[in-house]
Amino acid sequence: MKIISSLVLTAAALGFSGMASAQFAKAEDAIKYRKSALFVMAQHYSRIGAMASGKVPFDAKAAAENAAVAESMSRLPWAAFGDGTEKGDTKAKPEIWKEQAKFKEKADKMQSEMSKLAAATKSGNLDSIKTAFTSTSGSCKSCHDEYRDK
Amino acid sequence: MKIISSLVLTAAALGFSGMASAQFAKAEDAIKYRKSALFVMAQHYSRIGAMASGKVPFDAKAAAENAAVAESMSRLPWAAFGDGTEKGDTKAKPEIWKEQAKFKEKADKMQSEMSKLAAATKSGNLDSIKTAFTSTSGSCKSCHDEYRDK
Repeated sequence: MKIISSLVLTAAALGFSGMASAQFAKAEDAIKYRKSALFVMAQHYSRIGAMASGKVPFDAKAAAENAAVAESMSRLPWAAFGDGTEKGDTKAKPEIWKEQAKFKEKADKMQSEMSKLAAATKSGNLDSIKTAFTSTSGSCKSCHDEYRDK
Repeated sequence: MKIISSLVLTAAALGFSGMASAQFAKAEDAIKYRKSALFVMAQHYSRIGAMASGKVPFDAKAAAENAAVAESMSRLPWAAFGDGTEKGDTKAKPEIWKEQAKFKEKADKMQSEMSKLAAATKSGNLDSIKTAFTSTSGSCKSCHDEYRDK
């Protein structure tokens, strides 16, 4: 209990709020977590992109598998943008914490586009996948342009 | 939970094949990927540990959610231990690539223990969760002792 009390106090001192962000012992863990989840997502996502652009041969099964992982990963990062995680080894802009509703909207948009992409890969239709991939990439870019440092 | 189930199936389907490592553009991407997946897994896993040890109050729903993510993540890192990823920003010991069957055995063991833990969390029985958590932690330690630098 002593450890937990000090954890709670630490989290409080860092300005953590809400259940989700309180689940990270330190702000740097939250930052590392969200970057890790996004990196894993991007690896699987880029494999679909390589097929969509024709850089690698289209493999419907691989596309669906990678899209399923990317979709699952797309759900994870957001709990790690709690108060107190603005500073550290991060490219996240301070605007995220000033415009939380707008940031959430963009995060939600990406997740819904990623779900549409996953659905498209299940259809096995490359044209549908290309369309969904372009839309999803647009949602990534829109958020990065506004909320991620270059 | 549906998303998570699909991630488990997908990751299982991706398996432990040589193909997978060719999917990384650079060795450093593979290294970053496996570390990222393990870090995300560890974050969720540690939340179950905090409940198992009584450091935080037991919350059956949270335990099951965290175990589902940890189980899914436990499938991912192995494809990123391909040839050519021995060197770089990694604590992975060279023995991994010399004793691949043994390393795979330990990786498989951890995944099966993690699945048992996920099943235990679904039962909502804290004693079962404690038992499964201890076994899973043993499988982590066994692999780290042998194949991860201090």
